[in-house]
Amino acid sequence: MSRKLTLHPDRLFPAEERTRSIARGLYQSVRDIPIVSPHGHTDPAWFATNEPFANPAELLIIPDHYLLRMLYSQGVPLEHLGVPPAQPDRREAWRCFAENYQLFRGTPSRMWLDWVFAEIFGLDVRLSAETADLYYDTIDAALRTAEFRPRALFDRFKIEVLATTESPLDTLEQHRAIRESGWKGRVITAYRPDPVIDPEYPGFADNLREFGELTGEDVSTHAGYLRAHEGRRAFFREAGATSTDHGHPTPFTADLPREQAEALYAKIFGGGFAAADAELFRGQMLTEMARMSVEDGMVMQIHPGVYRSHNPQLLDRFGRDKGADIPVATEYVRNLKPLLDRFGNDARLTVILFTPDETTYSRELAPLAGHYPALRLGPPWWFHDSPEGMRRFREQATETAGFYNTVGFIDDTRAFLSIPARHDMARRMDCGFLARMVAEHRLDEDEAYEVAHQLAYDLVKAAFKL
Amino acid sequence: MSRKLTLHPDRLFPAEERTRSIARGLYQSVRDIPIVSPHGHTDPAWFATNEPFANPAELLIIPDHYLLRMLYSQGVPLEHLGVPPAQPDRREAWRCFAENYQLFRGTPSRMWLDWVFAEIFGLDVRLSAETADLYYDTIDAALRTAEFRPRALFDRFKIEVLATTESPLDTLEQHRAIRESGWKGRVITAYRPDPVIDPEYPGFADNLREFGELTGEDVSTHAGYLRAHEGRRAFFREAGATSTDHGHPTPFTADLPREQAEALYAKIFGGGFAAADAELFRGQMLTEMARMSVEDGMVMQIHPGVYRSHNPQLLDRFGRDKGADIPVATEYVRNLKPLLDRFGNDARLTVILFTPDETTYSRELAPLAGHYPALRLGPPWWFHDSPEGMRRFREQATETAGFYNTVGFIDDTRAFLSIPARHDMARRMDCGFLARMVAEHRLDEDEAYEVAHQLAYDLVKAAFKL
Amino acid sequence: MSRKLTLHPDRLFPAEERTRSIARGLYQSVRDIPIVSPHGHTDPAWFATNEPFANPAELLIIPDHYLLRMLYSQGVPLEHLGVPPAQPDRREAWRCFAENYQLFRGTPSRMWLDWVFAEIFGLDVRLSAETADLYYDTIDAALRTAEFRPRALFDRFKIEVLATTESPLDTLEQHRAIRESGWKGRVITAYRPDPVIDPEYPGFADNLREFGELTGEDVSTHAGYLRAHEGRRAFFREAGATSTDHGHPTPFTADLPREQAEALYAKIFGGGFAAADAELFRGQMLTEMARMSVEDGMVMQIHPGVYRSHNPQLLDRFGRDKGADIPVATEYVRNLKPLLDRFGNDARLTVILFTPDETTYSRELAPLAGHYPALRLGPPWWFHDSPEGMRRFREQATETAGFYNTVGFIDDTRAFLSIPARHDMARRMDCGFLARMVAEHRLDEDEAYEVAHQLAYDLVKAAFKL
Repeated sequence: MSRKLTLHPDRLFPAEERTRSIARGLYQSVRDIPIVSPHGHTDPAWFATNEPFANPAELLIIPDHYLLRMLYSQGVPLEHLGVPPAQPDRREAWRCFAENYQLFRGTPSRMWLDWVFAEIFGLDVRLSAETADLYYDTIDAALRTAEFRPRALFDRFKIEVLATTESPLDTLEQHRAIRESGWKGRVITAYRPDPVIDPEYPGFADNLREFGELTGEDVSTHAGYLRAHEGRRAFFREAGATSTDHGHPTPFTADLPREQAEALYAKIFGGGFAAADAELFRGQMLTEMARMSVEDGMVMQIHPGVYRSHNPQLLDRFGRDKGADIPVATEYVRNLKPLLDRFGNDARLTVILFTPDETTYSRELAPLAGHYPALRLGPPWWFHDSPEGMRRFREQATETAGFYNTVGFIDDTRAFLSIPARHDMARRMDCGFLARMVAEHRLDEDEAYEVAHQLAYDLVKAAFKL
Repeated sequence: MSRKLTLHPDRLFPAEERTRSIARGLYQSVRDIPIVSPHGHTDPAWFATNEPFANPAELLIIPDHYLLRMLYSQGVPLEHLGVPPAQPDRREAWRCFAENYQLFRGTPSRMWLDWVFAEIFGLDVRLSAETADLYYDTIDAALRTAEFRPRALFDRFKIEVLATTESPLDTLEQHRAIRESGWKGRVITAYRPDPVIDPEYPGFADNLREFGELTGEDVSTHAGYLRAHEGRRAFFREAGATSTDHGHPTPFTADLPREQAEALYAKIFGGGFAAADAELFRGQMLTEMARMSVEDGMVMQIHPGVYRSHNPQLLDRFGRDKGADIPVATEYVRNLKPLLDRFGNDARLTVILFTPDETTYSRELAPLAGHYPALRLGPPWWFHDSPEGMRRFREQATETAGFYNTVGFIDDTRAFLSIPARHDMARRMDCGFLARMVAEHRLDEDEAYEVAHQLAYDLVKAAFKL
Repeated sequence: MSRKLTLHPDRLFPAEERTRSIARGLYQSVRDIPIVSPHGHTDPAWFATNEPFANPAELLIIPDHYLLRMLYSQGVPLEHLGVPPAQPDRREAWRCFAENYQLFRGTPSRMWLDWVFAEIFGLDVRLSAETADLYYDTIDAALRTAEFRPRALFDRFKIEVLATTESPLDTLEQHRAIRESGWKGRVITAYRPDPVIDPEYPGFADNLREFGELTGEDVSTHAGYLRAHEGRRAFFREAGATSTDHGHPTPFTADLPREQAEALYAKIFGGGFAAADAELFRGQMLTEMARMSVEDGMVMQIHPGVYRSHNPQLLDRFGRDKGADIPVATEYVRNLKPLLDRFGNDARLTVILFTPDETTYSRELAPLAGHYPALRLGPPWWFHDSPEGMRRFREQATETAGFYNTVGFIDDTRAFLSIPARHDMARRMDCGFLARMVAEHRLDEDEAYEVAHQLAYDLVKAAFKL
């Protein structure tokens, strides 16, 4: 017997009727607002070529590290799911996923997937071992139709703007192709310079060399290296970029005197550096990036605090981004001080802070963002991009930072089909939070309507200058 | 169109009707209990001179660092608000504040201010750019009347006792003037020796010299320095003080052998000390203060864990306490051990612990206070003196520390007019918490009534020996 | 006037009626499931001898460090409670406890005790100074009857299996006596090798010597020491053990090359080791224990992060486990890496992680357990074995780890009579959590019923191989 798959119209709202009723009203007012997705990891080639997506497994399972990690944690080998270099039968991979679908009970992945199944593919029974083939056939067939090509879905999702993320070494030719295609969808890039800033990034020395060739700068000198960034940032801005992104292990920043910065760069460039040098260089470069942002107006995002590729066996076999990234305790108050001492009072700068360490919401991030003109709080990130995570963020950040030092929702995903589901979840949770404030007479209802709209649309557009 | 300003009688209670109804009953039983304010930062000169408050901006905006920081974070220069040394038009400062009033949505400041506007000044429209002048004129006119002088408000607020906080170098002449004035209001002082204990306090060397002159002790010797404290504590007790307060960067304590303590003091007094010496001295002095408290009965408050004046540009221009103080992670278990090893089992001592780091409620503070006879937990402090902060405190501390190792509410404010609003918020939140326990059958209703009274009145009087 | 004592059938369920109604249904479906208690500290001698429990004070107060610490924190001397070596009148100890019973308001101890009083002893008035003697007499009389002997209560509690915890130096003769008695109750042991692994354990050198004698191995060599463990583990498995338990100060692990491990052991065995050596040895031995678990199938439990016997005065007078154990911040991501690098991908291994530091639920433990096949999350432990603690655990762990990387409820108690109360609390809280997910349409109701059963029974049996 297959169970029905339904998306309840009141899902994610508080159960208490007084509050739920307010939440419903608020949600109605923001449900249909276009999606602004200022940061994420979709592939611009999808929109440049508009080729059909390959098959259910390659579209929905293999690129989604949330799914891989949960299945792996319960003993499912990644080979069974078809994660490269493995190449099993795609249908078998889908069946394996379907048989284990109960693992996702209580997780946001389950809610995002059910939305995709019901809303995008019109499925009305729950995914299970029994319905695996029905699902595979339905989705596979749909993917071969025009309505399910990337651009059609982009339009159907009412995406106003979508940012991808590229390395400085990227030629941005996909973005050029999109612009030149005549298609009206707004897909922009973002500048993620980790490969040429983090001395511990795989292939760093080669990356630097390529960086020099690409920009025509002499990156063997500190000045040439910084000019290469400036040039590349300008190139990215021409492709629509309004932001940079920095995935450092910590939010450590430094502001060295020029001479020391040059000596440090010489050591980094030469390759004979220690781990502490690498950390110092990353920190120094965050401040350099802030300086450039003051000059060129690009918004900085800092995504620190994740121990990447914690599982060396998995890394060896399958590479990065397979679900073995684990958050660590993260400190912002002392780490950000050098950057803030220099630019924290400069309203031309916007630095958006993210964290995988929720303890910093009320202790560090909300007080910092509630004081420094240059700081804003990003929405709950990664593991905390979830109903409970969103609730905790609002409960812990709002009383100190208010609503206006936050920047709305950011999906930060490579799972393109789930983008509307993620924004819908965020809108529902924000409306539920606002509804509770209204029901407890901590906010007037007219104000809640205004804030709901700002959280869904205005704040993110303003913060990212879109 | 101006919106109405209303204070809903059910504000801050849980929305769920079963729980709300219980909360209402509990709150009715504590609503009118007199206010006991055992620790705060009001100015005793107000009550000594009973002069009218100057104007709306100087009374309500400029001294309130909660307001300054939020406005500053959104790009409002402090000069526009009239923060000294700036001296703009007071009405313009008020208008600037009013135009940005939406920034406080969802913050406790908003609820405290609305209470002040509605309850004290009888305003019935919401503050906004449109109503800024109405507000200014109404408040300004009220402040010129006898009913709005400090003593009249003190009586109207039903304050049973109010403690201010003074440096050991203070002559306490304002407190003497209050006592000699014949006015019946009980305003007492508290001993805050940071200026003569913290070697890194601005002007420390001069403070020490003055400390010696004031007490007639030879503070060039360790023994003389300690006697100076003892003498000054006695002087403060004569002015009603029942407590001391310590705003150290960390809760680190030490218990050095006499000889080492003397050598350390010699180094501190001589001025040739390192940062580690300063920390050691602060820690040693907490234990000395505990020893004196065992002897003279004064209650110790420790308020650690805040990085003061994080923003050097702001400090240079506007001085301390302007909203740039940021909490940091704080450790209590190892830091307090030297003090506790010596005095933790001594029921003559009461040490009240505060924290800006909520992670310590359930992990460290509740277990410590739930064991040591000398320890009590202060209420949620600073950024956590808020509805969600209070809820988290009760949820995270009660199951381990119970109610009786906490000490009721402490407003800790310099915003005199907000004192009743703050106590009212705390009473409402505590009643809401108790109501949930009753509704979930975790506490009997008769017990909840008893606890509500204790949280509002009995515990704070007992803890502070008032 | 004595107040009634009642256990409300809806206790611990959310107050909101929609949710409560779902919770009631879920709870009905799991209420009567047998108790599986895979880890705890009851005394096997109770079941071996089946002698009556001594008296109310010795049964219910003196062994319960939750009660001792709270009473002590409020100034009750442990002597008044009859804690050895003190030997007061047992009835007086009970009266002292009864007079202070209000201290437990809002704590889980209060709910567990009320359950014991009402359900086991049929008392229907609340414990207080007035009813102290009634309680004492009622309980004391009951304890002299056959129905209140250990085995009768074991059966009445519907305990399917109960694990005790023993040192490797234990002869397990009580367990043998139980098996040979013909009684059908399943009481098994667990291997807790801290006394012979932790170089800082009291009496460690003597313990090692005894360990060698008991096993016939030459524990002066590293190889002999490891063989002694292997032998003793086999002996414990014969007495039903399926798990080991490790109460280290931290979850630090190491994986030294054999030669270094041998040199370290030589230093430890010789006694001339520093604190860092002790920590390194504990860490190395966790990895050795994991290796043995891969080989013999025993499940590993790690209970780190508690500063034991924080109060030296109390330790001197009354010994360990008297309520002076205080949690500290605990780090898992880097600490566990050496063990996980070696065995984290091995599905033959199950390591169950506990924490007294709730900040790690969402930041470290759920991401780790949501990735590594060898890891599972233990339920909320010690101070967090409480309604709010359980709620926070599910809210913070589920979205990342799901339900299936958790292992159901573990009572971990020496308070035998409270075992059913503790399991009942856990079932009610889990049903309340699931009910909220259903009411918010985040989980379908049929799934919630399945998960409720798994949380109450299936997961713990599977994780502990029972």
